[in-house]
Formats: sequence, structure tokens, C-alpha cells
Amino acid sequence: MKIKLSEVAELIGGKITGDAGITIDNLAKIEEAQTGELTFLYHPSYEKFFNSTKASAIIVKPDFKKSRKDITYIEVSDPNIAFAKLVIHYLKPEFPLEGIDRTSSVHPNAKLGDNIALGKNVVISSGCKIGNNVKIFHNTVLLEDVEISDDCLIFQNVSIREKCKIGNRVIIHAGAVIGADGFGYYNDDKRVFHKIPQIGNVVIEDDVELGANVTIDRGALGSTIIRRGVKIDNLVHIAHNVVVGENTAMAAQSGIAGSTKIGKSCLIAGQVGIIGHIEIADNVTLIAQTGVSKGISKPGVYFGAPAKEFRTAMKLEAHVRSLPEYAEKIKKLEEQIKNLQEELSKVKGDI
Amino acid sequence: MKIKLSEVAELIGGKITGDAGITIDNLAKIEEAQTGELTFLYHPSYEKFFNSTKASAIIVKPDFKKSRKDITYIEVSDPNIAFAKLVIHYLKPEFPLEGIDRTSSVHPNAKLGDNIALGKNVVISSGCKIGNNVKIFHNTVLLEDVEISDDCLIFQNVSIREKCKIGNRVIIHAGAVIGADGFGYYNDDKRVFHKIPQIGNVVIEDDVELGANVTIDRGALGSTIIRRGVKIDNLVHIAHNVVVGENTAMAAQSGIAGSTKIGKSCLIAGQVGIIGHIEIADNVTLIAQTGVSKGISKPGVYFGAPAKEFRTAMKLEAHVRSLPEYAEKIKKLEEQIKNLQEELSKVKGDI
Amino acid sequence: MKIKLSEVAELIGGKITGDAGITIDNLAKIEEAQTGELTFLYHPSYEKFFNSTKASAIIVKPDFKKSRKDITYIEVSDPNIAFAKLVIHYLKPEFPLEGIDRTSSVHPNAKLGDNIALGKNVVISSGCKIGNNVKIFHNTVLLEDVEISDDCLIFQNVSIREKCKIGNRVIIHAGAVIGADGFGYYNDDKRVFHKIPQIGNVVIEDDVELGANVTIDRGALGSTIIRRGVKIDNLVHIAHNVVVGENTAMAAQSGIAGSTKIGKSCLIAGQVGIIGHIEIADNVTLIAQTGVSKGISKPGVYFGAPAKEFRTAMKLEAHVRSLPEYAEKIKKLEEQIKNLQEELSKVKGDI
Repeated sequence: MKIKLSEVAELIGGKITGDAGITIDNLAKIEEAQTGELTFLYHPSYEKFFNSTKASAIIVKPDFKKSRKDITYIEVSDPNIAFAKLVIHYLKPEFPLEGIDRTSSVHPNAKLGDNIALGKNVVISSGCKIGNNVKIFHNTVLLEDVEISDDCLIFQNVSIREKCKIGNRVIIHAGAVIGADGFGYYNDDKRVFHKIPQIGNVVIEDDVELGANVTIDRGALGSTIIRRGVKIDNLVHIAHNVVVGENTAMAAQSGIAGSTKIGKSCLIAGQVGIIGHIEIADNVTLIAQTGVSKGISKPGVYFGAPAKEFRTAMKLEAHVRSLPEYAEKIKKLEEQIKNLQEELSKVKGDI
Repeated sequence: MKIKLSEVAELIGGKITGDAGITIDNLAKIEEAQTGELTFLYHPSYEKFFNSTKASAIIVKPDFKKSRKDITYIEVSDPNIAFAKLVIHYLKPEFPLEGIDRTSSVHPNAKLGDNIALGKNVVISSGCKIGNNVKIFHNTVLLEDVEISDDCLIFQNVSIREKCKIGNRVIIHAGAVIGADGFGYYNDDKRVFHKIPQIGNVVIEDDVELGANVTIDRGALGSTIIRRGVKIDNLVHIAHNVVVGENTAMAAQSGIAGSTKIGKSCLIAGQVGIIGHIEIADNVTLIAQTGVSKGISKPGVYFGAPAKEFRTAMKLEAHVRSLPEYAEKIKKLEEQIKNLQEELSKVKGDI
Repeated sequence: MKIKLSEVAELIGGKITGDAGITIDNLAKIEEAQTGELTFLYHPSYEKFFNSTKASAIIVKPDFKKSRKDITYIEVSDPNIAFAKLVIHYLKPEFPLEGIDRTSSVHPNAKLGDNIALGKNVVISSGCKIGNNVKIFHNTVLLEDVEISDDCLIFQNVSIREKCKIGNRVIIHAGAVIGADGFGYYNDDKRVFHKIPQIGNVVIEDDVELGANVTIDRGALGSTIIRRGVKIDNLVHIAHNVVVGENTAMAAQSGIAGSTKIGKSCLIAGQVGIIGHIEIADNVTLIAQTGVSKGISKPGVYFGAPAKEFRTAMKLEAHVRSLPEYAEKIKKLEEQIKNLQEELSKVKGDI
């Protein structure tokens, strides 16, 4: 890798200040960058590294104070996106997996498209259909009648149960379990649970990414649906018959209970829990650890358990922190009242 | 599938209103049902679909207002249970796995019962004993001396460590890890952790179901025990030497720390956390995200972190929401007191 | 196992009271111990079993009241550590896995040290380097260029992605996923997410233990680092570019968001969540379910969401529990004020 900085600036639509003639040989984090490397500054907490970074060039916002003369600046409106574009352009990882490994097991009636790579011990069961340009890594298992479209990347030790459908350009990370039985029982009069067979499936639309050890249960009846463009982080749980709307993101360890419908372009932070049988509107942001126990019909930011509008939650939090002061004030008021009562009695006596 | 509605009604003990002579060809969710299909109405939030459903027949509660004449009603006291019975009766999924796959590995001294199915790359180690009618799916691993009784279903990529014992009719979903080492260390005076070998095991009794990617650690000494009829959802964590009582259910992402004993017929909702070394009584319900830091000796419903009786928690929550109002009142009281004091001084002066 | 109690006492530096000449044949929990077995009493909640235990000998603290005469006591300052030492000394489990199984797959250019054991279907990809005395259990997958040092124990169904580096004496439990892509995207103006390739790796230093189904994501750029001696429990999530400091412990289901740095010797309890891009000082203890949304620069104990110093949190919790009383007091004050105002008006009229 040996790239002219002018080429980089053009690619990201940036303005160079300083020596535009240099070349760079790598991208690196600001605190680790070495001479010859390009870095970026996108989060204020990293400005402390600016004076000491050894990077030869840095991507910054237009208003950044260019106090060092020994470094070349590229100004763009969003350094994070600019840097991401460079990583995608120059450093996109390629996975060397190719061909159908002889230890993989493909049922004779399964249909495989062109340019399929199957790793060691991969199991493709009866009735499966796989599109073109799909890589499935070692020890991953597809039960019967699973359908996978084109250009998917499915890492190792993934489990996809029968009848689930995966769209195009889907990425599934290691250990994910797609289509396990939903948590569905009924109680008899002795409080013994009886299993309700879970006979639906999971539908994952195009451009979805699912993190490591994620679990997405199959519908009890009908489908659990992850809409186009949804991104789901590690260890997230999605229960049966949930629908997650387009371009929604869910951070690690959050969970959604059965039959709930999440809107489009929601941002669900880590360790959030959402109760079953409710609807969340589009463009809802849920702060980390929020517990949603009722439907949310209004876009906005929510926090707390039970969830409240963020401003309300923060206001209440401030009030809670003031409780010792309030208690003190109440005590003082009680004393003052007592004194007033006494004084008043005295006054009355004096009249 | 082509079933007389009268047969259905008999099976679930229901009363037909409308055309009892029709046949149905499938079961479906109310919002997705088509002509010829039978649906059910069990949760009020789905009543909005009643006017538009294309279903030919619907299972409802006795008091349901039968406003449409083009649909046949079956009345039962609990439509959910009735529907579940039909799913179990007509649609119970069968898993086609059969026989011992040649890629599976069974140690010569392991004992297998009748009618065992082992998928691809299954590993059965030395000393294992497996009963009759057990299906173990692809890439699942049993280490030494694991015992599994009859009629179990163990999905793919499951890991069962040495000496663990599994009862009858147990279902274990993909990615579950049974019998990993408990989290046990002691600190030296430099705060370095030293591992305490975890030499116990896990005992799973009859009729237990364990969700995808669940982790149940082996006892440090002795056993971690999951009693008969317990149902555990995805991504739940059970630490070493925990005992979960009969017919208790735990929803997704909840966790129990070491040596805690949970009673019978408890309902533990999602993302609940329970501290170690305590006891929870029978018939305790813990609302989602509750954090239990002390033993609970009284049946009932609990919520919050730290956990409180549900009514108390809801009352406190209402008070917290009233804090801005309380703060306002305190301010007003302070002003009123000040005014009173001034007025009283004036009165005193006037006398 | 048939050990003289005097040998046991010497090993743990304990003082015997009672019959020092007996031998013991097993270690057991106090409530399960039988004649001939040695037990210990370390947690007050187990004292209730002392009168009924059948153990022949018991390890206790020096101040323990030795009320039974039919049992031999060994006094030590910390019975838990003493017992742990005995378990390590007498009962350390040995795993019988040996040699390179013929179903494992080792790339020709991978380098294996001495005394390596590879289980069934293990995959060692191109460029991997593995040290001496390493056991890798069944169905575990190492992608390209993974490096593992000496004396490691890696259980089954583990997934280690390309370029990750594992130190000496590291234990990784079943189902763990090391080096999956971090959760990194940028949004375009239609709120569609675009993936930022995650081209870093994970570095696990010496003496680390990772629980079952843990997920540790690779750095976006650079490394996610788990320092020497860190212990991580089941189902924990560590995001990209996190650094966890030496000898820190994290209990089950806790999670750390991207780029956060955790200090040394921290104790992070279960279900704790820590936001991204912050720093936590050394010697910080986070109580279970705590949500940390800002950096913590002072050692100490913290609790709540948002996190507060433990004493403050407990004080506020007590105030919240008093809210019904405060509300009552405010109401009473309002009435008293009203009465005072009326009385004062009357007095004024009387003058």
C-alpha cells in the first residue's frame, strides 16, 4: 500500500492543508499511527492524542485548529465517514475460503448456485437452496429447506434451522442460532408447562448483519422477520414473531420479547429489553439498559425502566439526586411551621 | 390437511356458532389467515384484525361479540390453550434425522439405546450412556461419561461437558453449553486470581427445555440442578451450584449467580439478574430486568433493582414521576412560610 | 483418595482441634458431606448445616465456636482459599484428550508445537502457530494466522477469527467467539447503514479465562486487548477496541461498548453495561446491573443506572423508599400552612 495523499483527498472529497505531495502507506488509529500513516480525528475524546501522534497526515473537521505544521490535514465534514470510506476502499478484508470442502456434507437434492464456498464439516440438508457467491464457514449447519440468496457470508458454528429464509448480502457471525423454537408453552392447572410446537420460520431480508451468538427464534405460526438493512450486534435475543423494521440497529445484549413490532430506523442501544406484543414507532432511540413495557407511538429518545422520554427521565434523575436536599427542606419546613404555630399562639394570647 | 370443524370443536371441547359443516385446511395467525383457515383470538391487541381477517373460522372466548356472520365461531374458555392443542395435534414438527451418521464419532465403550439418531460430526466420548429415541443433531459434542435418558432432542452445535446427566424428554437448543467450568477463583494478596477447579457436574431432570446459546455451569463441588419441567429461554446464564425448582420458567437473557436456590413454579422474566447464595420461594414472579439482591421468602410479584414487591415498586415509580410536582410544592411552601413569617412579624409589631 | 488429615492441615497451614489421626477420602459440600469426608464453612449462610453435617472433618475460621465434639476442626484464616488449595492439589481435573485426531484439519503451513491435542473436526487454518501443551477440543475453528502460545485449553465449538493472538495458559470455554467483526457502520442521508470493515484483531494475554458463549470483537483498526490475568464469565460481550486491564474480573452477561478502557483489578458484576469511549480507573467495583455512562476516575464501589458511588446510590434508594412518607408530609404541611394563614387572617381581623 503506497497511496498519494491527493488521491485519498479526492476519494473522500476533502481539502488538503500542508504538504499535498506526500504518500501514505497505511491507515491507523491516532494514538498508534506511525510516520507515513494516515489517521483521523472524529471523537473529541481523542483530541488529547493530536499533539503526540506520529501520523504524517490526519483527517479533521473544517473547524479544527491546525496548530501543528509537521502534519498534513485533510478537511472533510465527517472524518468518521471519510475514514470508513478509505478503509472500505483500500483495506476491505478478503476471506480465502474457496470451493466445496470434501468434509462438508451437501444433500443430493440441495441446490447450490455459482461460486459457492463451503468450509470443513458444513452441513447442507435436504431441500436447501443457496444462491451465488455465498461463503459458509466451517462447522455451520443448515437444516432442511433453508434458502439463502446471493453474496452472503456465514461464519463458523452458525446454526440455521429448517425453512428459514436469508436474503442477499446477509452477514451472519459465528455462533448465531437462527430459527430455534420460540419460548411458547401453556400451563395446566398444576402449573406444569406444555410445549406449543413452533412451526413458523425466520425471514432475514437483504443487507442484514447478525452478530456473534445472536439468537433469533422462529415464529410460533408465521414468521419472525428481520427487515432489510437491519444490523444486530452480539448476544442479542429476538423472540418468536417479532418484526424488526428496515435499517434499525440493535446493540449487544438487547432483547425483544414475542410478537413485538419495531419500526424503521430505530436505534436500540445495549442491554435494552422490550416486552412482548407491543409496537415501537419509526425513528425511536432507546438508551442503553432501557426497559420498554408499553408501546411507543412517538419518535424520540427514551430511557429508563420503565422507559420514559429521555428529557423526562433525566429531569427525574436530577430530582432523585436532590432527594436528600428535599428531605432536609421538608424537615426545616416542619420546624418553621411548628415555630410559627407557637408564635401565633403566643400572639393570640397577647391580644 | 383437511379437517371437519366439528372434529376440531370436539378436540378442544368448544361450542360452534355458525356453519358447523365447514372444513378447514390450515391454522394461521389472525392477520395472515386465508379462506379455509382456522385462526384464534387470545390477546386483546389482536382484536383490531377481527373485522378484516379472511379466516373461515375463529376460536374465541365465550363472551366475544360475534358481530360477523360470514365466519364460524368456536367458543372455549382459553383460546390460546385450545389453539396450542390443535397445533400439537395436527402440526407437530417431525425431524427427519435418522440413524448414526458415518461422520459421527462414537467411542467404542459408549452405550447407545434403541432408535438413536446422530447427525454429522457428532462426538460421543468414552463412558457416555444414551437411552432410547434420542436425536442428537450435527456437530454436537458430548465429553466423557455424559448420561442422557430417553426421548431427548439435542440440536446442533451443543456442548455437554464430562459427567453431566440429562433426564427424559429433555430438549436442548442449538449452541447451548452445559457443564462449562463455574466462575470460581480466589485472590492472592496481589489481587491475582487463582482458578478453583470446578469438579462437580450439571443434572438436568425430566421434561426440561433449554434455549439456544444458554450456559449452565457445572458445580464447583456437587451439582448444578435444573429440576423437572423447568423451561429456560435463550441466552440465559445459570452459575455453578444453582438449583432451579420444578416447573419454573426463565425468559431470555436472565441470569442466576452461584449457589442460589430458586423455588418451584417461579416465573422469571427476561433480563432478570439474581445474586448468589440466596433462596427464592416457590411461586415468585420477577418482572423483566428485576435485580434480586436478597432472598425472597414470600410468593408474589417483584420488580425493580433492588427488587421490591410489585405494588410497592409501582407506587414508588408513581412518586418518582411526581417529584417535579413535589419540588414545586416545597418551593411554594417555603415562600408561603416566608410570607407568613413576615406577616406575623408585622402583626406582632402592630400589637 | 485416602489422605491423613494431618497432611491436609500441613498443606493449608491449619491448626487441628479434635482427632488429628483420622484419614479423609473425599472433599464435599457441607450439606452433602458423608462420614469420612472433609468439608468447609466459609459463608455464614451455610452455618445452618453445621449441626447436621455428616462430615468427619471441617475447615473453619479461628473464631468458630467448636460446639460439636464428634468432628475434627482445622482452623485457617480463610477456609475458602484453604479448600480451593485442597481441590487444586487433590482433585484437579485432567482432560483425556490426546494426539491429533484424524478428523481434524491442519493446514500444511500451520506450525504446531509439542504435545498438542486436537479433537474431532478441529480446523487449524493457514498461517496458524500453536505452542506446546495445547489442547483444542472438538469442532473448534481457528481461521488464518491465529497464534496460540503454550499450555492453553480451548474447549469445543469455539471460534477464533483470523489474526487473533492468544497468550500462555489461556482457557477458553465452549461456544466463545473471539474476533468477530465489531459493530461498526456509518449512516448515509437515508439512514441506511454502511459497514466499516473491521480490520483489527483480538489480543488475549497470559492467564486469561473466557467463559462459555463469550463474544470478543476484533478491533476496527488495531486491537481489542484482554490483559494478563483477566477472568471473564459466560455470555459477556466485549466490543471492538476495548482494553480490559490486568486481573480484572467480569461476571456473566456484562458488556463493554467500543473503545472503552477498563483499569486493573476491577470487579465487574453480572449484567453490568459500560458505554463506549470512556475510561474506568483501577480498582473499581461495579455492582450487578450497574449502567456506566461516564468515565470513572476514582477507585471505589459504584451502583445504579446511571452509576453512582455505592453509598450515594444506597442513600438515594432509601430516600426513594421514603417518598410516600415525604408526600404525606408535604400534604400535611400544606394543610398546616392553610390553617395558619386562616388563623393569622383572623388574628389580623381581631386586632
